[in-house]
Amino acid sequence: MPTDLAPVVDAVRAHPPLVHCLMATVSMGIVADGLLAAGARPMMTETRAEAPTMDALADALLINLGTLSTDAMAGIPPTVDVARAAGRPWVLDPTAVGVAPVRARLARELVTRAPAVVRGNASEVVALAGSGAGGRGADAVHGVQDALGAARSLAQTHGCVVAVSGDVDLVTDGDRVVGVRAGHPLLTRVTGTGCLLGGLVAACCAVAPPFEAALAASAWLGAAGERAAAQASGPGSFRAALIDTLDTLTAADVAAVRCEEQ
Amino acid sequence: MPTDLAPVVDAVRAHPPLVHCLMATVSMGIVADGLLAAGARPMMTETRAEAPTMDALADALLINLGTLSTDAMAGIPPTVDVARAAGRPWVLDPTAVGVAPVRARLARELVTRAPAVVRGNASEVVALAGSGAGGRGADAVHGVQDALGAARSLAQTHGCVVAVSGDVDLVTDGDRVVGVRAGHPLLTRVTGTGCLLGGLVAACCAVAPPFEAALAASAWLGAAGERAAAQASGPGSFRAALIDTLDTLTAADVAAVRCEEQ
Amino acid sequence: MPTDLAPVVDAVRAHPPLVHCLMATVSMGIVADGLLAAGARPMMTETRAEAPTMDALADALLINLGTLSTDAMAGIPPTVDVARAAGRPWVLDPTAVGVAPVRARLARELVTRAPAVVRGNASEVVALAGSGAGGRGADAVHGVQDALGAARSLAQTHGCVVAVSGDVDLVTDGDRVVGVRAGHPLLTRVTGTGCLLGGLVAACCAVAPPFEAALAASAWLGAAGERAAAQASGPGSFRAALIDTLDTLTAADVAAVRCEEQ
Repeated sequence: MPTDLAPVVDAVRAHPPLVHCLMATVSMGIVADGLLAAGARPMMTETRAEAPTMDALADALLINLGTLSTDAMAGIPPTVDVARAAGRPWVLDPTAVGVAPVRARLARELVTRAPAVVRGNASEVVALAGSGAGGRGADAVHGVQDALGAARSLAQTHGCVVAVSGDVDLVTDGDRVVGVRAGHPLLTRVTGTGCLLGGLVAACCAVAPPFEAALAASAWLGAAGERAAAQASGPGSFRAALIDTLDTLTAADVAAVRCEEQ
Repeated sequence: MPTDLAPVVDAVRAHPPLVHCLMATVSMGIVADGLLAAGARPMMTETRAEAPTMDALADALLINLGTLSTDAMAGIPPTVDVARAAGRPWVLDPTAVGVAPVRARLARELVTRAPAVVRGNASEVVALAGSGAGGRGADAVHGVQDALGAARSLAQTHGCVVAVSGDVDLVTDGDRVVGVRAGHPLLTRVTGTGCLLGGLVAACCAVAPPFEAALAASAWLGAAGERAAAQASGPGSFRAALIDTLDTLTAADVAAVRCEEQ
Repeated sequence: MPTDLAPVVDAVRAHPPLVHCLMATVSMGIVADGLLAAGARPMMTETRAEAPTMDALADALLINLGTLSTDAMAGIPPTVDVARAAGRPWVLDPTAVGVAPVRARLARELVTRAPAVVRGNASEVVALAGSGAGGRGADAVHGVQDALGAARSLAQTHGCVVAVSGDVDLVTDGDRVVGVRAGHPLLTRVTGTGCLLGGLVAACCAVAPPFEAALAASAWLGAAGERAAAQASGPGSFRAALIDTLDTLTAADVAAVRCEEQ
């Protein structure tokens, strides 16, 4: 039976959650603008000197390994500890985890600290589960269905929800698996849309349980991508239209996205 | 009697000032593009190794505490000293000053080094004046009129102009107070528009006294926001239209914004 | 006799090269989105801890001195060494080289490590060749024709191609000189279009010899700028249209740009 996602969207807009993001430098702009458009609020301080302290203001935390600056590398672990100690939900986006040992070690350590949701593409989920190296930079070389076993295993081992992005987004808690059928190929032609999905998952985690949060965020971005593509002349106008549409989509539009038990 | 702001806009366009910005990583793009659209030139080097040296090229300096990277934390104080020693105007944007002790200490130290203008939202101005903690991330929780006493006090103590952003922007030198009635709620739905206002204030400080500079920058961004909102379908298209409009607004358009002595 | 540039564009789109970019923070967004639009893939990790390792995934490398963070300063030399040892082409964009000794030393050292192409504005090329200081921030104060001697000299000394951006872009290998007549003044009103040209040169170097790569990238961005300007209301809408047009231009459109032996 499908989950009703409309209340998640309504809740984000009714009480805009402050989402603390430690993330890829290149994607900060689209994540911040996307969160604002959806109705949430971004905060992007990442240093060890300030990020743990400022996290106390936040309603949810996004850890995206992205470009992994020295500041982020130092700031991420203590900030996760602060969020966890306070019982705030946090989301792990293990960008490109399969392709460099520094981020692989960090991601494997972080996933043991009780993230609410792990969000990645198929290659990242496979690599984080330890069942394979892979990916090409931030791009997936595995299909989403190939990653389902790894996603279930990660979810069961760490007691978290795992969301795998692809043609169909899969969300699993280790038991249930739901596929979200929305999105558009132009989403892969703009930098940072995967990072933005992580941010939206975090925003939704501030107002809903992790499973519903991951579904709502996938449906929200996917539906926005479809509608934006219909207005766009290419990836530049699509980016602006995507931000517009995150704002203009109604909760009913998001709830109308096809979500199917697998 | 109202100040004529048209000559400030004309002067920026006649001799494009180079504005050195040490600022929030997330907002660099909109500030650089906004300055270019208005007719100024951005420069964004922030390290201790280079920022003080390269500041010699600049006509004005913006210090925005933003995400406050380790590079910026180290680079800001010596760069301010270089600008001050050379007699170049500099603008302090004490982003989120009320919410973390590292930036609070830095901001309180910097404000003693003779900024031409302090620009912030109501909560930032209240926190910097020491009359209250506050803000939620970079967002204000105080109203502009509540911050007027703090703004006057800061201006008198430090001999600077203070500009408080909000529904009505207030600009004071500690004696005069002028309200600028322009702007649109969509300005709060795009990341970095407050940072961009700081950049425009710095650009205008390169060609006009600080009080007129702060008024002109507030009127320019506010009028651009109003006109852009009329063309926009949401925050994404608004962002592009705002940059367009900073370029296409005439000096007379900016001068037509209602500015009232309080 | 003109070089046919269509095969270069076709090759980028047929086998999207992964371009590793160590570059100006402020321009990361436009370079990543521009590369994706053109058909290439960006990767932007810059730390010493990860950039050399992750460069093994890439097909080409862009080194842009841009804002030159402490991370980039440390990561650039070993990453160049890895690329060079593997025989991957790399492009040097010596941003603002004439205006600060730290970057001047770095650029003069890097140019001896066999870049495929050096891309800069006239002042940067003149400064790198040691024949003059100059530039104003990232802006040129020299004309392109003034820089031709410096460009030839750099190309001959270091066995690389040098591309000088300006009203007409000049590309030389020290012997041949070809001028590319394309572009639009709006390209100078958006942050990072020069950085994007460097990224496109790197993408084209992954699939073509450096001389043809530099010509194709200049023609591609120039033609996109012309077409985008025809659709734009100002620099904000131009930026989005430029990204659209990098995607929609055909190989034949790029090949139709006037390239003339000088």
